[in-house]
Amino acid sequence: MEFARPLPSYLVQRYHGWKATTFEANKVWYRRLVTEGQHPRAMVISCCDSRVHVTSIFGADQGEFFIHRNIANLVPPCEPGGNHHGTSAAVEYAVTVLKVAHLIVLGHSQCGGVQGCIDMCKGKAPQLEERGSFVGRWMDILKPRYETVADIEDAGRQAQQLEKQAVLASLENLMTFPFVASEVAEGGLSLHGLWTDIGVGGLEGYDSAQKKFVPI
Amino acid sequence: MEFARPLPSYLVQRYHGWKATTFEANKVWYRRLVTEGQHPRAMVISCCDSRVHVTSIFGADQGEFFIHRNIANLVPPCEPGGNHHGTSAAVEYAVTVLKVAHLIVLGHSQCGGVQGCIDMCKGKAPQLEERGSFVGRWMDILKPRYETVADIEDAGRQAQQLEKQAVLASLENLMTFPFVASEVAEGGLSLHGLWTDIGVGGLEGYDSAQKKFVPI
Amino acid sequence: MEFARPLPSYLVQRYHGWKATTFEANKVWYRRLVTEGQHPRAMVISCCDSRVHVTSIFGADQGEFFIHRNIANLVPPCEPGGNHHGTSAAVEYAVTVLKVAHLIVLGHSQCGGVQGCIDMCKGKAPQLEERGSFVGRWMDILKPRYETVADIEDAGRQAQQLEKQAVLASLENLMTFPFVASEVAEGGLSLHGLWTDIGVGGLEGYDSAQKKFVPI
Amino acid sequence: MEFARPLPSYLVQRYHGWKATTFEANKVWYRRLVTEGQHPRAMVISCCDSRVHVTSIFGADQGEFFIHRNIANLVPPCEPGGNHHGTSAAVEYAVTVLKVAHLIVLGHSQCGGVQGCIDMCKGKAPQLEERGSFVGRWMDILKPRYETVADIEDAGRQAQQLEKQAVLASLENLMTFPFVASEVAEGGLSLHGLWTDIGVGGLEGYDSAQKKFVPI
Repeated sequence: MEFARPLPSYLVQRYHGWKATTFEANKVWYRRLVTEGQHPRAMVISCCDSRVHVTSIFGADQGEFFIHRNIANLVPPCEPGGNHHGTSAAVEYAVTVLKVAHLIVLGHSQCGGVQGCIDMCKGKAPQLEERGSFVGRWMDILKPRYETVADIEDAGRQAQQLEKQAVLASLENLMTFPFVASEVAEGGLSLHGLWTDIGVGGLEGYDSAQKKFVPI
Repeated sequence: MEFARPLPSYLVQRYHGWKATTFEANKVWYRRLVTEGQHPRAMVISCCDSRVHVTSIFGADQGEFFIHRNIANLVPPCEPGGNHHGTSAAVEYAVTVLKVAHLIVLGHSQCGGVQGCIDMCKGKAPQLEERGSFVGRWMDILKPRYETVADIEDAGRQAQQLEKQAVLASLENLMTFPFVASEVAEGGLSLHGLWTDIGVGGLEGYDSAQKKFVPI
Repeated sequence: MEFARPLPSYLVQRYHGWKATTFEANKVWYRRLVTEGQHPRAMVISCCDSRVHVTSIFGADQGEFFIHRNIANLVPPCEPGGNHHGTSAAVEYAVTVLKVAHLIVLGHSQCGGVQGCIDMCKGKAPQLEERGSFVGRWMDILKPRYETVADIEDAGRQAQQLEKQAVLASLENLMTFPFVASEVAEGGLSLHGLWTDIGVGGLEGYDSAQKKFVPI
Repeated sequence: MEFARPLPSYLVQRYHGWKATTFEANKVWYRRLVTEGQHPRAMVISCCDSRVHVTSIFGADQGEFFIHRNIANLVPPCEPGGNHHGTSAAVEYAVTVLKVAHLIVLGHSQCGGVQGCIDMCKGKAPQLEERGSFVGRWMDILKPRYETVADIEDAGRQAQQLEKQAVLASLENLMTFPFVASEVAEGGLSLHGLWTDIGVGGLEGYDSAQKKFVPI
């Protein structure tokens, strides 16, 4: 383990700043979060993208959201014994152990993972098609949705539509997990699809009546 | 998709608050993040736990950290074509596409995933041993490390030690990815292991010289 | 060049300390800063005063701020072909080449340059009024603002008000540069006025709605 | 002044962290810096480049260095009534008012300003040659030195040599200021030329006996 290095000094300094201010001002709450355990109301599945700040957008307090972040906020279908365990494990834990009331899939504009999927589908990204490409194999989850946007000529609009399809695919895949479907059926869990436009701070939600995303 | 529901109103309200304040005050930077793309300096792998706020602890700005969150901040070993794609894809994207300079694995106290692993190893969690348990199969990544803490009698201390072992296991597994190992060897990437004690706001870093975690 | 002398030994010693510690712990990041170039998010214009530590106050990492420091953090108006090139060149480079998103003018208490301007305006500093006084000619940028504070009897309060006027004058002068004004208009750049009270570690920001500086 | 904007929130948070830690731990010293005024031992002239951390390299305390930063750490020759007042004013204040004992010019590798000068001399940067280019007119200070490196074929080595020439030009120009020359002659002020290699954390000092820069 001689390869492990000390934390960069600017992060050390910032941590001490947080400890002396935010933590100090909320320490009673943090201690209670330990003695009583976490009881998050919602799980959020969002992208790893550094420009997506779930806690900032929703003014979240410590202890409020159980957050899973992966490339392109994708949920694979339920495949016991199969691939993609990390995301499925996070969903299973949130729904069966923590019993969250809301499960939010948050997509976003300018998603590099979704763009990689488009490039792959257009035959422009041979490296992603290789068996050994983890990103490529992960984006296979979204690939079947490409046909719904294949005819859109404007590249920006095409990407946005596939980003939204990624949210819908994840919502549908969530329903293939028996513990999700039964909680939804019993009214103990509700699913929500969102898409945020980073550059303008926009937020759209999927409206199942209108069958499209509308501004919130 | 009739199961998709509107966003709870308290979150709608908070979003509009964020839009009118934080976003409004930083909109120049958010637009730049779109036109110039993300250039995060570091990737952080942390737990989904609602009590772990990576961006808060490190005073992070939008665009600064590429964040992957899964149960117990685990990284599986490199297995092309095998399981666990989500985490491997996130690491691959961060290191080969975004070329982050720092890769930080952040463990934490009171980790439910790690406790589940202990219970499983003690034969107290048969449901996690089932083939269909996504959490159980995910925690298999950590299972071999249980023997290093099996003799610790105090349950709290045992859990903390295994939480730290989870960080070390992830660091070692990271080095099994060829693209990580080569970047580390060439000095283009450094790995860091951290563990935060939620209740007291503590932060410890793995010191490769002392071969243990020490307060930062 | 026989007048150039070796670096004082106490600085040599400190440099080696930095090299063995801070640099060693962050060398991956420093190398990246070279291979990928600098991409600072913000430019800061502050005073040369030894008591103003921009990077310390803002927990800055290497590569985060493009920093210009001159006497009294002044920006002269745009005068192509005229005087004051050093500051104008720094602003031009930051905005047109580096494309920073934020331009922060940071004033401070106990500013010797501002005090010199007051003395000059009160006829108490004839040496600054001489044509050959570089400090005097530089403070001419601020001189027209003296009338806004001329009636303040308390010397300390008068100095603080003129220090804040120096920040406002610089902000207004920044807007006379076409490349600044157009970026601000297009939303690609935002200007911020700050004033720090050294002795008590205070920080105030100019609030354009209230038309005054308020604590941050 | 409606164009002035609030400070980005992440900087507000970091400031409060600094206030609660670094400032709190040193508040006696900061207060003394106010009551006794600043008495810096040295003035440093360095580049605005975000990768050059003067205070970090030299482990500087608040109040220790009077720091002027401009593009390419250049000092123009003494020209009363002429251009370039900002830098001359900073030098005049440091030497005649603060009476610093050391005046350090700190150059650095990968300097964008120096590269711009090379491009201009090679006829590759017509925009810098325009009368209205502040950066171009500022780099005119260095232009006469280009002939000393014109024959170097390797572009990287050529840039490094001109970066070092910028330090020497500034040292020579400093001596054209009567108040600098007389203080140097009387032994009250010493001049030092340094160049730092950012990527490897190197530091070289100009040795007047060997007439070249040597590692420190």
